[in-house]
Amino acid sequence: MSWLETSYMGRKGVARGRRGASHALTEAKQGTYRYVYGPYAEPVLTVKPGDVIEVETHDAFEGKIRSESDRPSEILRMPFLNPQNGPIVVEGAEKGDALAVSILSILPRGAQPVGTTALIPEFGGLVATAATAMLNKPIPERVKKMEVTTEGVRFSERITLPYEPFIGTLGVSPEIEAVTSLQPDYWGGNMDLPDVAPGAVVYFPVHHKGALLYLGDCHARQGDGELCGVAVEMPAHVTIQVDLIKGWTIPGVRLENERFIMSVGSARPMEDAARMAYRDLIRWMVDEYGFEESEAYFLCTQAGSMRVGNMVDPKYTLGASMLKAYLA
Amino acid sequence: MSWLETSYMGRKGVARGRRGASHALTEAKQGTYRYVYGPYAEPVLTVKPGDVIEVETHDAFEGKIRSESDRPSEILRMPFLNPQNGPIVVEGAEKGDALAVSILSILPRGAQPVGTTALIPEFGGLVATAATAMLNKPIPERVKKMEVTTEGVRFSERITLPYEPFIGTLGVSPEIEAVTSLQPDYWGGNMDLPDVAPGAVVYFPVHHKGALLYLGDCHARQGDGELCGVAVEMPAHVTIQVDLIKGWTIPGVRLENERFIMSVGSARPMEDAARMAYRDLIRWMVDEYGFEESEAYFLCTQAGSMRVGNMVDPKYTLGASMLKAYLA
Amino acid sequence: MSWLETSYMGRKGVARGRRGASHALTEAKQGTYRYVYGPYAEPVLTVKPGDVIEVETHDAFEGKIRSESDRPSEILRMPFLNPQNGPIVVEGAEKGDALAVSILSILPRGAQPVGTTALIPEFGGLVATAATAMLNKPIPERVKKMEVTTEGVRFSERITLPYEPFIGTLGVSPEIEAVTSLQPDYWGGNMDLPDVAPGAVVYFPVHHKGALLYLGDCHARQGDGELCGVAVEMPAHVTIQVDLIKGWTIPGVRLENERFIMSVGSARPMEDAARMAYRDLIRWMVDEYGFEESEAYFLCTQAGSMRVGNMVDPKYTLGASMLKAYLA
Amino acid sequence: MSWLETSYMGRKGVARGRRGASHALTEAKQGTYRYVYGPYAEPVLTVKPGDVIEVETHDAFEGKIRSESDRPSEILRMPFLNPQNGPIVVEGAEKGDALAVSILSILPRGAQPVGTTALIPEFGGLVATAATAMLNKPIPERVKKMEVTTEGVRFSERITLPYEPFIGTLGVSPEIEAVTSLQPDYWGGNMDLPDVAPGAVVYFPVHHKGALLYLGDCHARQGDGELCGVAVEMPAHVTIQVDLIKGWTIPGVRLENERFIMSVGSARPMEDAARMAYRDLIRWMVDEYGFEESEAYFLCTQAGSMRVGNMVDPKYTLGASMLKAYLA
Repeated sequence: MSWLETSYMGRKGVARGRRGASHALTEAKQGTYRYVYGPYAEPVLTVKPGDVIEVETHDAFEGKIRSESDRPSEILRMPFLNPQNGPIVVEGAEKGDALAVSILSILPRGAQPVGTTALIPEFGGLVATAATAMLNKPIPERVKKMEVTTEGVRFSERITLPYEPFIGTLGVSPEIEAVTSLQPDYWGGNMDLPDVAPGAVVYFPVHHKGALLYLGDCHARQGDGELCGVAVEMPAHVTIQVDLIKGWTIPGVRLENERFIMSVGSARPMEDAARMAYRDLIRWMVDEYGFEESEAYFLCTQAGSMRVGNMVDPKYTLGASMLKAYLA
Repeated sequence: MSWLETSYMGRKGVARGRRGASHALTEAKQGTYRYVYGPYAEPVLTVKPGDVIEVETHDAFEGKIRSESDRPSEILRMPFLNPQNGPIVVEGAEKGDALAVSILSILPRGAQPVGTTALIPEFGGLVATAATAMLNKPIPERVKKMEVTTEGVRFSERITLPYEPFIGTLGVSPEIEAVTSLQPDYWGGNMDLPDVAPGAVVYFPVHHKGALLYLGDCHARQGDGELCGVAVEMPAHVTIQVDLIKGWTIPGVRLENERFIMSVGSARPMEDAARMAYRDLIRWMVDEYGFEESEAYFLCTQAGSMRVGNMVDPKYTLGASMLKAYLA
Repeated sequence: MSWLETSYMGRKGVARGRRGASHALTEAKQGTYRYVYGPYAEPVLTVKPGDVIEVETHDAFEGKIRSESDRPSEILRMPFLNPQNGPIVVEGAEKGDALAVSILSILPRGAQPVGTTALIPEFGGLVATAATAMLNKPIPERVKKMEVTTEGVRFSERITLPYEPFIGTLGVSPEIEAVTSLQPDYWGGNMDLPDVAPGAVVYFPVHHKGALLYLGDCHARQGDGELCGVAVEMPAHVTIQVDLIKGWTIPGVRLENERFIMSVGSARPMEDAARMAYRDLIRWMVDEYGFEESEAYFLCTQAGSMRVGNMVDPKYTLGASMLKAYLA
Repeated sequence: MSWLETSYMGRKGVARGRRGASHALTEAKQGTYRYVYGPYAEPVLTVKPGDVIEVETHDAFEGKIRSESDRPSEILRMPFLNPQNGPIVVEGAEKGDALAVSILSILPRGAQPVGTTALIPEFGGLVATAATAMLNKPIPERVKKMEVTTEGVRFSERITLPYEPFIGTLGVSPEIEAVTSLQPDYWGGNMDLPDVAPGAVVYFPVHHKGALLYLGDCHARQGDGELCGVAVEMPAHVTIQVDLIKGWTIPGVRLENERFIMSVGSARPMEDAARMAYRDLIRWMVDEYGFEESEAYFLCTQAGSMRVGNMVDPKYTLGASMLKAYLA
């Protein structure tokens, strides 16, 4: 028996995790990629709970950065960054439900070197930006291309890093807003959280009829914080399964895998993201695992884990998690 | 000669500040009010540079909080808050231009007591919120109604505060985003900045053809920071004149009145809003008033003023200003 | 009758504001200046409540920056910055009391140009620092000297700024800590708050027997935020009167002048300083002016003022104030 | 061969990691415990590089919280919290050197239940505090006692957590400051970072002759962030070895163990702590491992790890680390 049968999706999903039809959302079918999470774009696909979707995602630069001599400042044009597949309608989804997205696999696609990272002027965790505005001059821009296979990321002659792919940007539409795909928020979006990986089921609060799922921006791997703002970006074949949990009204993104449950917070300053994540984790432990609030607060204090997803996006994303071993 | 003739609008505007046609944007003409700043709604009015517009704005609660016994948590429904008039198309406006909005007058309208403030659960500058998430219990909600005339705000039997009205939410559409009217950002929006008052000309960077002007949320007055999150909210008759400065590409909101120029920053944490505002003020002084950067930095250090607009909205808004006397 | 008779100091001080003996704390009498606020240094003077003290303060650089060709990075040596006079023992002061410091006058002393400002590497509100650590290169350092008289500050050929002097660093010793005079905190210290000026009475919570008053770092004037980190620094003749309010246990620095009362908060991020200041102001209004908490919260929302003292020191300092006209 | 021989301590330490004399710093020998990190207290012990010291530490409450019915607000008295052993003089240490502290073992001592955690009013990561000041009422205080052995922490009937002890507060004296042992900073102090554990060597910048080492506040274990502000506090037998690296001038705390090197940042807001930690890690990689700055920035982006130590102390502490496998 897979642990997935014991997941929220497996126990409470409309499809109880059973696989339905398969769909392919190729580049051709997608047509125009999307740069906002919102309800104003025409859906590209309609699926049912339980259905499996194979998606051809672009990298965050829509493939425009092709060589190490490219200059991002000349090629990239705001706000047309971080192209997304979608929106995908999930039948039956209504405000107040939770959409479950089970991530089955992420594979690199396209010609090598398929991985790209870059130093982009006035962007990143250790440089002055439009928000943390300073008078210092920008540091030089730079592009680095890397071969990526499921065997590893060829960072340099000397260093090969493990292939640990995840979806950088994943979520649903807000109710009436349409927000840049560069931003993470309570609906998901650009969380850049390495736990959004194969083996995880991610839950999103539905705000709009049909949920309107978007995704893109896969990373072959990333360190905590996505420090320079650009992970090992790659175009990918992504396979996900969706399900729907009726009436599970959650305030933001939650996630589970075989080992732990995680609540996600996106905010600035960073401590606010940490507070959001941990408070939601405590409320989850209280509502669904029978803890008193103060016991959950104590257990998070002694055994909670905190992942810094990104410290570079319009909001920072952190995930607070608790091992399932302590929740049984 | 009015100082307005020497303003950017007066010197560089397409209409050079000369009054064009007059338009009335009544409640009836507006029809449905808007809750996002974005390009997806049907325009309600089209005007030319120089035109004058009289607008009937709602208060931030769309008039739904009628008595001190009302409970905001039962009446208000997210995200349908802070209703806006608009969008108004300004002919000729294109990305890269600046829209000038000269505020001519703001008058209360409707039956007394026309002013409303309130303590709303998990909202405000001195309580735990969804972002600054805590385990403390919310403080009790409360509504306070106040008579407001141009003579003053009747805060209590004992205290009458000066009538110093301004437009709480004013701005233009982002290029492809549609963002809640609760949020301030580089396009304006919910800045809650008391300097956006009669006598000021406010400049917004145009991102979308026609600019798509929105406004609403007038305040009879407000202290620095809008501490509890709700100023003296009132429905209003607002009279503005618009003009267009072709090719003046500004990174965010700027403002001038007879005494000073001001750059506005909206961000969290608050120091980032302060940095944005001051950096833009310095760049403005360098670009248009002939200062060397280090001299402008020194002058802001010795003579800059900082206004805390709001410390409660999704982004905090601060304005950095310099007296025109030092710029001559 | 002076408003001072109606001040806390005038009404509740041990000396009721009546002048006692006069003392001179000259450079010679001070001997070694101090770089920490703490209880471990030998007192240089003992005074009684009501006594008047004339103090010869150094500028923040102890006079070492003499010309515009000086390079601060070569001259200044951490942590020996911001030299302070003191500690001064106030007889009878005990933990739980408040020390009142009435500022009578501040005059520049020394040879012209007596005023100094500077760009110091990795220091200031618009540059990367040790705390807001970035990879950007520092901006060039620079010194600017200015003539300062009580008639004005000669900023440039063209610009003369008003002489509006205040004490940049003023406070009492913590109980057992000895903290750099560069830092502001609940005991005062390097607040860089322009309201700490002649005409104000500043109240400090006493933590150590004798209070152990320190002061220094006078500014001929300063804009909000002390943006580059260095105001118009000058050596000064300062005249203050001290008094003692027994049993007035305050959580941090408070201030009053003829027009308003102010609570001071020092913290990072900046919103925390704002919250500290406003919460204390509300509590003060509740405890001493008969407001209900929610009424005080509403009045601060509609009529509170917020001053950004500094946005450059180890903690940022903000002051929240309310006009006495509304407190009567 | 132990990895320690390849550590900085092993390669560059005055004693090259060879064990010298053994010392016991018992409760009796310590006498009065210390509440500040500073140079004003009489040393309790003098050791040489290479010496081993066994220390009897108190828990953070000096053993005063004895049962679950105790009320911290009645028992604890600021600033006399977090008692420290020390100062210990390390012969030969001078400003500009680095002190190495190799942690050999940490064992609980005293009568069971030896572990204590608590909810203390206005303290913790998910409640309003003096700094994040709010009007919400405090949550109820509560004490929880736990049996702790090297086998585990008995959190509840159902849950036993692994024994993963570390030193919560460890560091050296600032040059002229004496700062509360509740605060972490560039000299160490109350970092509450779980990596400061047996098997690690921690490096501190020496600011005062003799280094003046302090330590205390051991935790049987702790989750990321030390959420409620109180880990599994316990009195302990701690065994450390000290060594001295002459002329290694580091800006803050660094750490290594068999697997990784880590730079530590302590600041508010939390992103500043993250920036400090990552910038120092990059500089370390550049200075000692031959990376170009942009390559180090990229590698941290793709493979850096970030540990949230505490999100409750006067400054938050985060550690940025890089696997030694990538540094070879």
